[in-house]
Amino acid sequence: MKIALAQINTRIGDFEENTRRICEYIERSKRDGADIIVFPELIVCGYPPLDFLEFEDFINRCNTAVEEIAKSCIGIAAIVGSPNTNPKSEGKNLFNAAFFLADGKTHQVVHKTLLPTYDVFDEYRYFEPNQNLFKCIDYKGVRIALTICEDLWDIEEDKMYTNWPMEELIGQKPDVIINIAASPFSDGHEHSRKRVLHKASQTYKLPLFYVNHVGAQTELIFDGGSMVLNREGNIVCEMDYFKEDFRVFDLDWVKTAKSVTYAAASSFISEDSSIERIHSALILGIRDYFRKLGFKKAILGLSGGIDSALVYTLAIEALGNENVVGVMMPSHYSSDHSISDSEKLAKNLNGITKLIPIKPSFDSLLESIGPNFDHQKPDVTEENIQARIRGLILMALSNKDGYILLNTSNKSEAAVGYGTLYGDMCGGLSVIGDVYKTRAYELARYINRDREVIPENIITKAPSAELRPDQKDSDSLPEYDILDQVLYNYIELRKGPEDLLEMGFDKALVSRVLRLVNLNEYKRHQTPPILRVTPKAFGLGRRMPIVAKYLS
Amino acid sequence: MKIALAQINTRIGDFEENTRRICEYIERSKRDGADIIVFPELIVCGYPPLDFLEFEDFINRCNTAVEEIAKSCIGIAAIVGSPNTNPKSEGKNLFNAAFFLADGKTHQVVHKTLLPTYDVFDEYRYFEPNQNLFKCIDYKGVRIALTICEDLWDIEEDKMYTNWPMEELIGQKPDVIINIAASPFSDGHEHSRKRVLHKASQTYKLPLFYVNHVGAQTELIFDGGSMVLNREGNIVCEMDYFKEDFRVFDLDWVKTAKSVTYAAASSFISEDSSIERIHSALILGIRDYFRKLGFKKAILGLSGGIDSALVYTLAIEALGNENVVGVMMPSHYSSDHSISDSEKLAKNLNGITKLIPIKPSFDSLLESIGPNFDHQKPDVTEENIQARIRGLILMALSNKDGYILLNTSNKSEAAVGYGTLYGDMCGGLSVIGDVYKTRAYELARYINRDREVIPENIITKAPSAELRPDQKDSDSLPEYDILDQVLYNYIELRKGPEDLLEMGFDKALVSRVLRLVNLNEYKRHQTPPILRVTPKAFGLGRRMPIVAKYLS
Repeated sequence: MKIALAQINTRIGDFEENTRRICEYIERSKRDGADIIVFPELIVCGYPPLDFLEFEDFINRCNTAVEEIAKSCIGIAAIVGSPNTNPKSEGKNLFNAAFFLADGKTHQVVHKTLLPTYDVFDEYRYFEPNQNLFKCIDYKGVRIALTICEDLWDIEEDKMYTNWPMEELIGQKPDVIINIAASPFSDGHEHSRKRVLHKASQTYKLPLFYVNHVGAQTELIFDGGSMVLNREGNIVCEMDYFKEDFRVFDLDWVKTAKSVTYAAASSFISEDSSIERIHSALILGIRDYFRKLGFKKAILGLSGGIDSALVYTLAIEALGNENVVGVMMPSHYSSDHSISDSEKLAKNLNGITKLIPIKPSFDSLLESIGPNFDHQKPDVTEENIQARIRGLILMALSNKDGYILLNTSNKSEAAVGYGTLYGDMCGGLSVIGDVYKTRAYELARYINRDREVIPENIITKAPSAELRPDQKDSDSLPEYDILDQVLYNYIELRKGPEDLLEMGFDKALVSRVLRLVNLNEYKRHQTPPILRVTPKAFGLGRRMPIVAKYLS
Repeated sequence: MKIALAQINTRIGDFEENTRRICEYIERSKRDGADIIVFPELIVCGYPPLDFLEFEDFINRCNTAVEEIAKSCIGIAAIVGSPNTNPKSEGKNLFNAAFFLADGKTHQVVHKTLLPTYDVFDEYRYFEPNQNLFKCIDYKGVRIALTICEDLWDIEEDKMYTNWPMEELIGQKPDVIINIAASPFSDGHEHSRKRVLHKASQTYKLPLFYVNHVGAQTELIFDGGSMVLNREGNIVCEMDYFKEDFRVFDLDWVKTAKSVTYAAASSFISEDSSIERIHSALILGIRDYFRKLGFKKAILGLSGGIDSALVYTLAIEALGNENVVGVMMPSHYSSDHSISDSEKLAKNLNGITKLIPIKPSFDSLLESIGPNFDHQKPDVTEENIQARIRGLILMALSNKDGYILLNTSNKSEAAVGYGTLYGDMCGGLSVIGDVYKTRAYELARYINRDREVIPENIITKAPSAELRPDQKDSDSLPEYDILDQVLYNYIELRKGPEDLLEMGFDKALVSRVLRLVNLNEYKRHQTPPILRVTPKAFGLGRRMPIVAKYLS
């Protein structure tokens, strides 16, 4: 038996195009002699469809699409993920389902048992878990244990669920496990994924076919990396990362193949290339955001600092240098190098820049507002006015020419609220809002691995917002190497103040940083979607009260 | 037996203060001769604690607080809601629990069975459902069926769950049902609540004590309205709405009491006062947002239109006229009545206003940016610049004087994206972002019920953004009475395009409105939290992809 895996990139709710592409791959795998073609979880509507699942019309369109796809399944079977209506009056209205299509119709439907409801996942919001119906699929003499993503995941020590679908299926003596997934990228996640799939395959002594989504859906970046494991749990093929891919496998070959006999050609991911993967993820994140929204051009402010230099570079890699405009907006506090460094960067990339000084607008606004300041001395208000004039200018250019404004805040700043709402926090997409400042430097070094793209001075100078004379980030914040460690432990690992003290961090510093993180929830509530590259990004996967008193 | 209900308003994560107040009420109910005092769901940490529940330190503080509260329970029992750690390695780490405290310690713990995971609720994100442990509590010869909020709710026809805790408990022949809840206000929800409680009490022929949270937690407004029902399911006491309340009841009296023998004194809610309830909810929402964040003063733009007039009035009602500043910021397109109407409003309320014309700033900014516009003719860009200058001015005043900026967008505008990001969409809190435009007029009429507070001209003139000459909302949008009907059916009722056509709406209009709603998800992603007064508000309870193609 030949099994094809189609790791494709679909758009949420684009039923016509998604169906067309699925059918195209079905035809292709027929030509390649495949018996079954396997598509990812909820591929028909795109993942995650979120509350569109609550619209009956949306579900009707899913069903129509599945019927349409089934018609292509003559002489071949296809497995596609799509929601399925719960016929009972008890429980949620839908199941997260895998449709096994053959002979022009739905042959069998499998419902997902384990519904991830944590971090960015909300599946129990929409779906009823399968509880009692565990039935392998028999097709052309092969018995398939068909599972959906999380259904294979609860194999670790600390189980999140109280049941375990493979234990139910294994009694029916399947020949192969197929798993259809929508597993988004985060730094290090592919190791967990391999560990889990290895353990499942090894435990049940079965070959395993795993097909994952690829492509970005707003903040979530699906990295692909579909794979096939032999009966000993060894990976015999790892498909492309951050790209569409399609492969056909002979099941008999897979059963006996030893370790990795061939790997994805162009983008095989080595074990120690975390920065490389984050880089690829961000590029895909930017590219799909624009492409799927129907936009081509980006704009951003160029301050002369590391963050904007990095986003400018990433945007040019993703969209092309003719499609990215960097705007330099010096104030009376801007250093000379804020311009010269940005110009050098643009020159290295053959990129477009514009220069719009903000002093005249600042003076004019201050003249209008100043009389209401009641002779109070300058403070953060005047700093914010500068940042907001820049935001206003960028949005004006964005509106006039149909650009999307890219936000350049990093995760460290976003965490402690070191940024101006409606100023440098503007934008349609936050590119590096899940990248700590120290990681931003690593990314810059990685980008410069072959030649100087980001000027050395941008990397080595002390970070500054340049909103008052001789300002440095370190005037207001701890050094970033310390700050980032505290943030990582608090945000990613959910350590409490006592844990952090035990780890040797300074008490006053810990208390200040945690307080800043919690107090600035109101700012993060209004930020653009942030491309997620860590296991705990701000946004969809981290839900915090704005009005609260804990550690603040 | 005497049972006290304590409908109190706590702050999320404020363990010290929450514990102090709970203990204060325990002492008070001892003095009043109560045998048991009942507090709402998760009262110890506040509701909803969201992802704070994932912090071990947060859970430790909950446990310490419960131990502290238990010590006060000498000669009285108390029921408090707090998370409880799951001792098993399978399943989620926590239960949503009710602690029955007596004799200075935890006497028994009940775990919530039905975990609401829809709209604004994410309980399965954090909690393991109780599956097998159903045990009534015996105290002083009375057998109590103790349930937590949703545990009583699945009594309707279309069941969302597959099990039903009262069916398990009733076999143990309880004498009374107690339900501790965190049920937020939305228009009409108190009717569902009464229907459900009535049905539960009537079905099991038991008296029922229901205690709910009161107070606003960012966007959620808990309305209180705790109540007691006799064995026939009739309400014998309805406690205050939108206010703290405390009552002690004799169980024997409750059993035999007929219908409503006394009602909440000051704020008893009649059946046809939906606008009155929304009004009370918004006032509480504003007041608690400021109080719990430690702020006193609000600022907002006064355009001369209905929305800003309404928010100004509500803010003054909530915070006092000395604490609210309305800023008039006329442009070259502003009508004379935009100022005169606002001034009249301020005079009616004895409120504070400021006047800051934006023309000089607009001219200066246009001079700086204009050369980049490449001789394109004026369009929405110039309109947005005006709105953003206003946002900038308001934020500057807010920064300088420690005001919170109130956002004045209504739900109709927010739905179709008729507003400027970083302009009139700025603010710390959206007061009427869940109030359709047509409802905003009703609210204004309600506010004017005794005397003209909001000038008649503000209510009767045609809505306009005044961002270009002679602009009217109706130039870009359908008339609000039609628009709001389409929006209500799409947003609240999740009707699809075909349903809407069947209802008689125009095809082009439906298609345009639905498209606008979906396309503007990116704007709503960056709006301030919106006080929730309908069953489906933008924000926490409505999660939509930004990048998608459905109906757009």
